[in-house]
Amino acid sequence: MKLLALDTSNQPLSVALMDDDQLLAQTTVTVHPKHASYLQPIIESLMTSVHLEPEDLDRVVVADGPGSYTGLRTAVTTAKTLAATLNIDLVGISSIASIAANVFTEGQLVTVLFDGRNDKVFTGLYRIQNGVPVQVIADQHTAFDQWLPQLAATGEPVVVLGDLANFRDRLAAELKTNFMSLPAIMSIPQAQQIGRLGLNMTPVANINGFVPRYLRLTKAEADWRQQHPEEDSGNYVEKV
Amino acid sequence: MKLLALDTSNQPLSVALMDDDQLLAQTTVTVHPKHASYLQPIIESLMTSVHLEPEDLDRVVVADGPGSYTGLRTAVTTAKTLAATLNIDLVGISSIASIAANVFTEGQLVTVLFDGRNDKVFTGLYRIQNGVPVQVIADQHTAFDQWLPQLAATGEPVVVLGDLANFRDRLAAELKTNFMSLPAIMSIPQAQQIGRLGLNMTPVANINGFVPRYLRLTKAEADWRQQHPEEDSGNYVEKV
Repeated sequence: MKLLALDTSNQPLSVALMDDDQLLAQTTVTVHPKHASYLQPIIESLMTSVHLEPEDLDRVVVADGPGSYTGLRTAVTTAKTLAATLNIDLVGISSIASIAANVFTEGQLVTVLFDGRNDKVFTGLYRIQNGVPVQVIADQHTAFDQWLPQLAATGEPVVVLGDLANFRDRLAAELKTNFMSLPAIMSIPQAQQIGRLGLNMTPVANINGFVPRYLRLTKAEADWRQQHPEEDSGNYVEKV
Repeated sequence: MKLLALDTSNQPLSVALMDDDQLLAQTTVTVHPKHASYLQPIIESLMTSVHLEPEDLDRVVVADGPGSYTGLRTAVTTAKTLAATLNIDLVGISSIASIAANVFTEGQLVTVLFDGRNDKVFTGLYRIQNGVPVQVIADQHTAFDQWLPQLAATGEPVVVLGDLANFRDRLAAELKTNFMSLPAIMSIPQAQQIGRLGLNMTPVANINGFVPRYLRLTKAEADWRQQHPEEDSGNYVEKV
């Protein structure tokens, strides 16, 4: 199965082409957030380098959140468009799980923190089982001070990946020797991990209805809901 | 420190640009062995994507063997040329260690096998300590049947990466539950690991004299030595 994997959930952009579980080619760029202008040329350049045409693809796997609004929409829209146009499978993978998948220590607990500002984090807790991250606590948007006790309560060593800058001191103080950090490159999403996780998953049934897992409302949407308490909460995009 | 890392030791080609331990951009392509025609354009394309000019570079780190003769010469020649021209540091990293560096399980033994045909392997044994592979048994070119007992003698679980196809059955039979394999993508060299390992190493003193670690003679060189037993073994390249 020829597979295209995409991640632009956060500042890094990563694209991979795979043949089942074999990597064909991958490019990752971490330095500029303008994914919309870089994603398409990078896909094209990788396809050319491995001599694949769009019609050779069987599946698109995309990191579908949480992450930045614009970032998520860039990869998810590209993935939906390709899947619908080429009439191929579409699979979404948690952006948290895709980074946890950089860890291969069997049985290891792994959490990933995306800094959501104001001391909030997008996060989730996974355990590596048979080489893949299995969810222990669901991906969520929460106050870091509410997340930390849940990590401590495991009583186990926890590898913490992602944005540590604002949280490292409290992690060390609370988890003590159970706080495990890894070199910075382990927190970079690699599309080959997304592809690996998405290889055997059931594709989404309704490609058009597929949306990112934002895990929190935009300020605009939160305001709109407050002003339209009578509306079905699913209506925001159609109404605005 | 701005660092360019290169690996074309074997079939995969990997190029990374880093700022100290932070990945800026990386491309890995596994499908074609014509590294000489792909390496330069990929370096240029990555430099452009992260807005770096050659004179911004401080260091070149290259996987210097073992591996394919032509492959090693491609990256090593490119690295030497860049380091000499730009007057910057050159560091060589074992191609075996660079793949072992994909593993982060502290204390774990890791071996990497490059299939050298005729049941020979290029290999070495490493232990992950403080996140980096530390050599336990030196890189070497040896018969697989002489290597296997050395792995068994450790009495510990050993992660085996690299070319497993011709060796998996004997590994499983001899090491039993101490034989640990990982998903295929873990055996792909990633230039970001080479960059990470080479960041703090002492650069080579004599760039022009830097040569790959082939770890075995070419047939041509072996024949020449047999025919010229009186010659200094270092003279082959100059004489031929």
